[in-house]
Amino acid sequence: MRVSVIGGSSVGDESAAIAESVGQTLAEHGHTVVCGGLGGVMEAVCRGAHNAEPPAETIGILPGRDRTAANDWVTTPIATGLGNARNVVVVRNGDAVIAVDGAAGTLSELGHALDLGRPVAGLRTHDIELDGFQPVETPTEAVEYVERAVGSR
Amino acid sequence: MRVSVIGGSSVGDESAAIAESVGQTLAEHGHTVVCGGLGGVMEAVCRGAHNAEPPAETIGILPGRDRTAANDWVTTPIATGLGNARNVVVVRNGDAVIAVDGAAGTLSELGHALDLGRPVAGLRTHDIELDGFQPVETPTEAVEYVERAVGSR
Amino acid sequence: MRVSVIGGSSVGDESAAIAESVGQTLAEHGHTVVCGGLGGVMEAVCRGAHNAEPPAETIGILPGRDRTAANDWVTTPIATGLGNARNVVVVRNGDAVIAVDGAAGTLSELGHALDLGRPVAGLRTHDIELDGFQPVETPTEAVEYVERAVGSR
Amino acid sequence: MRVSVIGGSSVGDESAAIAESVGQTLAEHGHTVVCGGLGGVMEAVCRGAHNAEPPAETIGILPGRDRTAANDWVTTPIATGLGNARNVVVVRNGDAVIAVDGAAGTLSELGHALDLGRPVAGLRTHDIELDGFQPVETPTEAVEYVERAVGSR
Repeated sequence: MRVSVIGGSSVGDESAAIAESVGQTLAEHGHTVVCGGLGGVMEAVCRGAHNAEPPAETIGILPGRDRTAANDWVTTPIATGLGNARNVVVVRNGDAVIAVDGAAGTLSELGHALDLGRPVAGLRTHDIELDGFQPVETPTEAVEYVERAVGSR
Repeated sequence: MRVSVIGGSSVGDESAAIAESVGQTLAEHGHTVVCGGLGGVMEAVCRGAHNAEPPAETIGILPGRDRTAANDWVTTPIATGLGNARNVVVVRNGDAVIAVDGAAGTLSELGHALDLGRPVAGLRTHDIELDGFQPVETPTEAVEYVERAVGSR
Repeated sequence: MRVSVIGGSSVGDESAAIAESVGQTLAEHGHTVVCGGLGGVMEAVCRGAHNAEPPAETIGILPGRDRTAANDWVTTPIATGLGNARNVVVVRNGDAVIAVDGAAGTLSELGHALDLGRPVAGLRTHDIELDGFQPVETPTEAVEYVERAVGSR
Repeated sequence: MRVSVIGGSSVGDESAAIAESVGQTLAEHGHTVVCGGLGGVMEAVCRGAHNAEPPAETIGILPGRDRTAANDWVTTPIATGLGNARNVVVVRNGDAVIAVDGAAGTLSELGHALDLGRPVAGLRTHDIELDGFQPVETPTEAVEYVERAVGSR
């Protein structure tokens, strides 16, 4: 399946390591990664997915007009030119969502994801009290949660 | 100034009464209302703004393709055809934001608003722990907060 | 009704005078002007509509993030932040379209307008061989054509 | 490079055969196909690209909310939910554009493509008198034109 991974565009080492591990785990389980294509969590998850065995396809849905702005581990960059209106497109293109850290932009994506009925696993991110959001402790738990949530529908 | 009012498209009587009072107060203070143009909080705030003395302009930025889908108290409907990608356009077009009640769609708008640096007053809505978000108790407090926040910048 | 007026963002004096006259005529006939909110034809049509008796409402649907980028004669600026993806929103919000002059951006709007089934009158613009497009010679003919086309549906 | 292929969503056998040949030629030259992901020219070009040796990646940028609406030969569907506002995203994501047949929707994409400075080769499509548009007679000529135009910049 496809999993959209969202989170801060500028995060500390610990969150980056978690995002990279999410990317690696998703790839090892055969999933495709969708993200916003830029830095921070987006870059770390793509790097993890790309360096896994086998590597995963990583789709980066960019806010800007130029697809070369994507981080180095995006295999399929999509330049939307839509600015932050691309946030909803990022979560729409996953069957489920994993959030890592993040500030207000990530909050907008969490809202869109739950509004679209996507199951969301949260790692060190906002505390959301809406159905469909599940706080988890590890990348493995995050991936297992979204696999279960999508499989059960 | 312009104030974007966001909130649930289907809310109970109490939230609707609060949204209507927000609309009336904004109009009495000479502000323009921007909203998503549909029902629930969007309809109540437009009704309040329209029935005030003097009535306020009410801009409804709709998700669908047909501007006649706007509620009866929208004076300037804009049909975007963008679906939920219009949420960011709603908050972009206010100098500040007041949120009333609401579920996941409103959460996406709260995230976008704070991401764009808009000050946000919250009435009976999500509990957000980000700079720029201020929980308030009454419509008057909400309007006073956004007036102060915009004036002070 | 609402009429979207499209055309070049940088045009010569003759096209600007035609656009201004289109704006004046639309206002005198009681119509609202929708446009892209920037310069050239967009500015001239808004100026004509605003200086007419009575003045018309002029809605400017902007590509950028900042509504203060609108020309001085836009009464209702909408900042979309969508770049050129706002072109389809411009023509969607009119019941009919009048095109004056213009280059490739205007061509995209002509295509969107006809795709949405909007009747289009063309003044000194691209030569389009699709149903719904009518070349005309004067601003008055343009306004009369769109009035007739919308009235007859 | 990436080439966006645009054209009618419902075309006759001859245009479909041309589009399929464009897809095959692009794949044989090592290019990626970008299109709107639906039927007609979009489906034919993806089928041609997919059945070539080696097959090409085919990116389908869909107007709707559901990526399963893509035709069977799209390898990477992107569901935008933006309606016709996705047209500009289709042409933005190619380094050049090939147009085959098509009506008003295709005209909007031609306008957007030329507005973005993309070189465009046209096969049995609108007659455009703008710099950057080159009418051609065969799929091979179309591919050679866009290769030359992009290489020369």
